[in-house]
Amino acid sequence: MTWSDHLAKRSSRMKPSTIREILKLTQRSEVISFAGGLPAPGLFPVEALKAATQKVLGEQGSAALQYSTTEGYAPLREWVAEAHRTVPEAVQVVSGSQQGLDLVAKVLLDPGDKVVVTAPTYMGALRAFDAYEPHYLTVGVDEQGMLPDELEAALKEGPKLIYAIANFDNPTGITLSLERRHKLAELARAYDVPVYEDDPYGELRFTGEALPTLYSLAPERVIYGGTFSKIMVPGFRLGWLVAAPELLMVVARAKQAADLHTATFTQMVAHEVIKNGFMAGQIKRVRDYYRGQRDAMLKALSAHFPAEVSWTEPQGGMFLWVTLPGGHDATELLNEAVKRGVAYVPGGPFFAGGGGENTLRLSYSIATAEEIDKGMASLGSVLHEALQSAELV
Amino acid sequence: MTWSDHLAKRSSRMKPSTIREILKLTQRSEVISFAGGLPAPGLFPVEALKAATQKVLGEQGSAALQYSTTEGYAPLREWVAEAHRTVPEAVQVVSGSQQGLDLVAKVLLDPGDKVVVTAPTYMGALRAFDAYEPHYLTVGVDEQGMLPDELEAALKEGPKLIYAIANFDNPTGITLSLERRHKLAELARAYDVPVYEDDPYGELRFTGEALPTLYSLAPERVIYGGTFSKIMVPGFRLGWLVAAPELLMVVARAKQAADLHTATFTQMVAHEVIKNGFMAGQIKRVRDYYRGQRDAMLKALSAHFPAEVSWTEPQGGMFLWVTLPGGHDATELLNEAVKRGVAYVPGGPFFAGGGGENTLRLSYSIATAEEIDKGMASLGSVLHEALQSAELV
Repeated sequence: MTWSDHLAKRSSRMKPSTIREILKLTQRSEVISFAGGLPAPGLFPVEALKAATQKVLGEQGSAALQYSTTEGYAPLREWVAEAHRTVPEAVQVVSGSQQGLDLVAKVLLDPGDKVVVTAPTYMGALRAFDAYEPHYLTVGVDEQGMLPDELEAALKEGPKLIYAIANFDNPTGITLSLERRHKLAELARAYDVPVYEDDPYGELRFTGEALPTLYSLAPERVIYGGTFSKIMVPGFRLGWLVAAPELLMVVARAKQAADLHTATFTQMVAHEVIKNGFMAGQIKRVRDYYRGQRDAMLKALSAHFPAEVSWTEPQGGMFLWVTLPGGHDATELLNEAVKRGVAYVPGGPFFAGGGGENTLRLSYSIATAEEIDKGMASLGSVLHEALQSAELV
Repeated sequence: MTWSDHLAKRSSRMKPSTIREILKLTQRSEVISFAGGLPAPGLFPVEALKAATQKVLGEQGSAALQYSTTEGYAPLREWVAEAHRTVPEAVQVVSGSQQGLDLVAKVLLDPGDKVVVTAPTYMGALRAFDAYEPHYLTVGVDEQGMLPDELEAALKEGPKLIYAIANFDNPTGITLSLERRHKLAELARAYDVPVYEDDPYGELRFTGEALPTLYSLAPERVIYGGTFSKIMVPGFRLGWLVAAPELLMVVARAKQAADLHTATFTQMVAHEVIKNGFMAGQIKRVRDYYRGQRDAMLKALSAHFPAEVSWTEPQGGMFLWVTLPGGHDATELLNEAVKRGVAYVPGGPFFAGGGGENTLRLSYSIATAEEIDKGMASLGSVLHEALQSAELV
């Protein structure tokens, strides 16, 4: 049978992810990859997890392996609620932060509804939203994040949702300033629009003071998405939403229809690990490590990249964002880069409305300092040559 | 803010599950519950899982805790493919069989599309499909399963999908006969309609020969859903789809947008448990146990239920289906039953098109033989009284 004749309209928007296709390409071991945002496995708390799995299976095996409630494991919800100074009813456990995006879009978006995103933005969010056939309104960014004037212009078009990564944005590494956070909350309130605050990297701050979450500024309308992926392990697929209980009741129904509940076992094991203050030390370890990685990359960029190329200097997270002079195409340059043993993600796919051909994303999360220097030297030479040949034209 | 003003149209169809609300009601320990379909925790292979978690974390911790591919852990896909005599590309790992229902509906159903379901059918499937706003075409059943004449009449209305539980149906316990399986495959082919074969209970056959799956009869159009929930543990949320690779490529994109991938850790642990032939003994143990449970319930029903009440005699699975004389309402009787310490699920919510008020579902999966006898005696007395007072009117 010809399956393409049987698909729903929304399926035509389900494109293969560029990142994942490139990741496949760069799984050859001789390529140094700055493409994916994989956490460094040396940071996984393997011994703590070994102890926790044995304890949970030994003491609570029947409960840990049984069906459980859609809302999530109660002690885990309490832990999240405490961190956000709210009640457990304001917490929904999800199967990784990606599921939070999917469920919220599912309960809020009808086809044609408008969603505000920055240009660029996290492409996984675009893919989650795409299934519900929205129309994107894009807002530009500067070094302080989303531009308030452009945001207000977009809000005048009546969007159903604003999507924002306030801390160490994927892909740009940019952090939304305190003033802009207040402005965003104020505008969302004035135009009565919900906000999705995606915060996978919030704990990974290297420098400066932690800024208030958007959720803390407008808890009645912000849906906060958190995850263990970047601070503990991604292989559990374990995250959470914090939002108004009135909304989460509907989200829970959507989740029940989508996967009944998140695995009981991984929820209980994760809670066993965190329950006695383990995370303070773990987060410090993770933070210190990625700070060193970022520093190595910034140093290598200064040493090897042409003066005409610019990049962001993230205060945290896993990514920085490179801008080539206009007219250069990062997708075209990728082939040559991979030939010379280095990979990145071209910036174009992060723009919901097109553009950004001269941008690219670099992740410093997983390469060694030596690989970072070597990789940036290779990529630098690709860029030097591209800029030179452009001058010759 | 008033969240109800901000919801998508589909959210209005997301109703709380009757089963779950009743489960909450019956969590009082003095109530003997035949309502939920919880596997008996004594069957969970806790020791094997303890050994497997230690081995996986000790030997492959970095991989088991990292992100992994959307399609699923390759050795697990191979194991499923072998069982279904197909290729690994025909297997998609999902976060429990419920997610299979959600993802397939997501890629196949536009609002208003027609879906064929039996009356009654699994209400979790209805809830998964509801999010994509279909119209249901209902087909009656007899002791051999879905009625071919009614199925053909429904197919003439141009449905996008047929949903079927061929083995030990939830809620009825009925098994689709061999002849009807061939007829269903033939009709689906003649009308060029995909079939979703939901098979959580297939391995739990107590009597008779295993019948061929619908997938084996029409692999080009049947999407088969399997799960570890009833044969190993439900708390891992681990299942699989087997279907045409052409369709699964689209399903994988939908899954990537929905939750990136199923937890790497639970996939690797489950595979560690099953890889050396463990499941043959495990399935025999599970099967023998539930056979004893079914026998206890059939005996108790014969002993305690009024002659005017009829019930199915399942060849496997976890459920049987009770029909009261017309005019009696199982939802109305539930309050009295709970007062006398026994709970069940009224049949009405399993009917997509309404009706079935005089039916109810009993699960024999988790009560002890003694509880089954005691519970059926209580429920029997409720029914005797209801029938008597109806006669007096």
